[in-house]
Amino acid sequence: MGIQSLNTPAALIDVGRMRHNIHRMQSKLDKFGVGFRPHVKTTKCKNVVEAQIAAGAQGITVSTLKEAEQFFEAGIRDIVYAVGMVPTKLGQALALRRKGCDLKIVADSLQAAKAIADFGREQEERFEVWIEVDVDGHRSGIQVEDDLLIDVGRALVEGGMALGGVLAHAGSSYEYNTKEALVKMAEQERSLTVRAAERLRSAGFPCPVVSIGSTPTALSAENLEGVTEVRAGVYVLFDLVMHNVGVCEISDIALSVLTTVIGHQEEKGWAIIDAGWMAMSRDRGTQQQTHDFGYGQVCAEDGQVLGDYVMTGANQEHGIVSRVNSTDTNIAEKFPIGMRLRIVPNHACATGAQHPEYHAVEEDGSVETWPRFYGW
Amino acid sequence: MGIQSLNTPAALIDVGRMRHNIHRMQSKLDKFGVGFRPHVKTTKCKNVVEAQIAAGAQGITVSTLKEAEQFFEAGIRDIVYAVGMVPTKLGQALALRRKGCDLKIVADSLQAAKAIADFGREQEERFEVWIEVDVDGHRSGIQVEDDLLIDVGRALVEGGMALGGVLAHAGSSYEYNTKEALVKMAEQERSLTVRAAERLRSAGFPCPVVSIGSTPTALSAENLEGVTEVRAGVYVLFDLVMHNVGVCEISDIALSVLTTVIGHQEEKGWAIIDAGWMAMSRDRGTQQQTHDFGYGQVCAEDGQVLGDYVMTGANQEHGIVSRVNSTDTNIAEKFPIGMRLRIVPNHACATGAQHPEYHAVEEDGSVETWPRFYGW
Repeated sequence: MGIQSLNTPAALIDVGRMRHNIHRMQSKLDKFGVGFRPHVKTTKCKNVVEAQIAAGAQGITVSTLKEAEQFFEAGIRDIVYAVGMVPTKLGQALALRRKGCDLKIVADSLQAAKAIADFGREQEERFEVWIEVDVDGHRSGIQVEDDLLIDVGRALVEGGMALGGVLAHAGSSYEYNTKEALVKMAEQERSLTVRAAERLRSAGFPCPVVSIGSTPTALSAENLEGVTEVRAGVYVLFDLVMHNVGVCEISDIALSVLTTVIGHQEEKGWAIIDAGWMAMSRDRGTQQQTHDFGYGQVCAEDGQVLGDYVMTGANQEHGIVSRVNSTDTNIAEKFPIGMRLRIVPNHACATGAQHPEYHAVEEDGSVETWPRFYGW
Repeated sequence: MGIQSLNTPAALIDVGRMRHNIHRMQSKLDKFGVGFRPHVKTTKCKNVVEAQIAAGAQGITVSTLKEAEQFFEAGIRDIVYAVGMVPTKLGQALALRRKGCDLKIVADSLQAAKAIADFGREQEERFEVWIEVDVDGHRSGIQVEDDLLIDVGRALVEGGMALGGVLAHAGSSYEYNTKEALVKMAEQERSLTVRAAERLRSAGFPCPVVSIGSTPTALSAENLEGVTEVRAGVYVLFDLVMHNVGVCEISDIALSVLTTVIGHQEEKGWAIIDAGWMAMSRDRGTQQQTHDFGYGQVCAEDGQVLGDYVMTGANQEHGIVSRVNSTDTNIAEKFPIGMRLRIVPNHACATGAQHPEYHAVEEDGSVETWPRFYGW
């Protein structure tokens, strides 16, 4: 059974491309001698994560405790929950650890560190906690030179918890698109996180793990001295945002949405397709980048990129396909009703999240269903 | 059990507000003596749709055949699939009709009409087809004065199918924000769709149904002469886009996302919350409107609107809450770690789609889980 038998819209994974992407990241990090801990939030799919582990990944990163629960059930023990812990979620984290999951949790405030330590002592559980540091002003984390870093380390250690390490994510790397800028951001992420670990060690606290990562910095780093592991997520499938950042070709992108032409507005040069924002997500991540792909790049059913045809508009279950640079008044002839197309998405994490399953297309054209989960 | 017991993020429906919204729409349309056929794509939730039917809705509109299947199983027979039919989906539509579902399908091209008629004759099934007309250049549909309208009608009738009626959706009504403009657009939607029905009848074809609708036009229409039924979806929950359009107050919005504060960047005036775009969707529908609410309006846990605090940024599982007009450097004090907030969304259809279930909050504070489905 090939993709011809699929109903549309459907999320396709090109398995050959996916394996290539996995190999590329793993072999790079192997050369540097650092561990690799993929972020599974991109796919939430056991089949994909098994391929990442088989290739050499040493554990996983999760963005929700549900991901931790699901992948622990699938046999993965070494898990970092890379979102700041709050008191109300400690019970869920404890339950996972009690079942044998080697779950690491994260704190970036004194209040959270104390809450974890208080709860841990009360429950006689020595949580392993990683301290999040801010390397680029992007989102969360403690400033590396702030005394708060040492205070949080002390609160954890004196509170009886295990200070497992420091963790950073250079999320602002998504805003660059030159090799030079990415190398520089990768070095900034590395050096600041290593510096945070050194500050903690100088203060007398153990800090075995130095964990950094984002897809752009992981693929651009030229030096990983002092780093023990790297995290990255979207590299496994890639997307148009990563293409604009400059870390993949469109031909590396392993995710696309199969869709059917359902109508036209010929004078406007529009083909209407059955993939709307429900199938693509509302992510317009390329809007602020050098090349705006609308809601995605249009390809033929076999994956061939179709020039400057993009998905220019989206309602819930209707998409509009048109040319960027001119009006194609022959669009009804080019894309007749019933014709199938593939749309390559802006953001693989967001598009995948709209689908209950991927359809994994092997190099011989055969298709397998790979379920994914959602929710919290 | 109240909302205190819920994990975050969680999608809440304020049941009192929802009932009020249902009553408002139904009673308006009852006064005009026209049928009401809510669009269930907004919630994909049996509990919500049962409340709409109980209030007087005569059937439903769906955007996918999965919605048709799910709601037919839930006992609803009278269903319109309001997306242009393509040959590959006819088998699925046939299966539903054979089970007893009174499924109506839609065509807006000669090619689709002929494919339906050919398949119908082959299968000895007289499909009921509605012709989609374009009343505002928004998306799909045949131009009302185009000869194609008559040709499609003829292809259906002579092909042995039932020409059930005409259908239009004034989707461009979302772009207006004055009573005058909405009344005018509602009248345009009505008059053009009625004209399409008259053209078909003059050509000798039956056209019993005249179906129009969108939430803004349905709530603004002052004349529904010639219309037999109205469709609308988002009115049941409302959202910030509808607030900006001017058809609801923020206090009418029945959907919000419960979230927990997980950290701060005090110098920036940021509180970090555990609702990112995965919980809110990437929908930035208010960005081009008069009031940009970012990813949503921040409210207290009890629903009280908190001035100009909005969700200004979103990563997958992290949101950034800040003031629009100034930097609140006391934000860590105002919104301490562990505090719960509610975020009112831009677009109820998109936010709901991110959640496996709603938590329905009754006026006495009790909470019930209302499952919803997704996928195709």
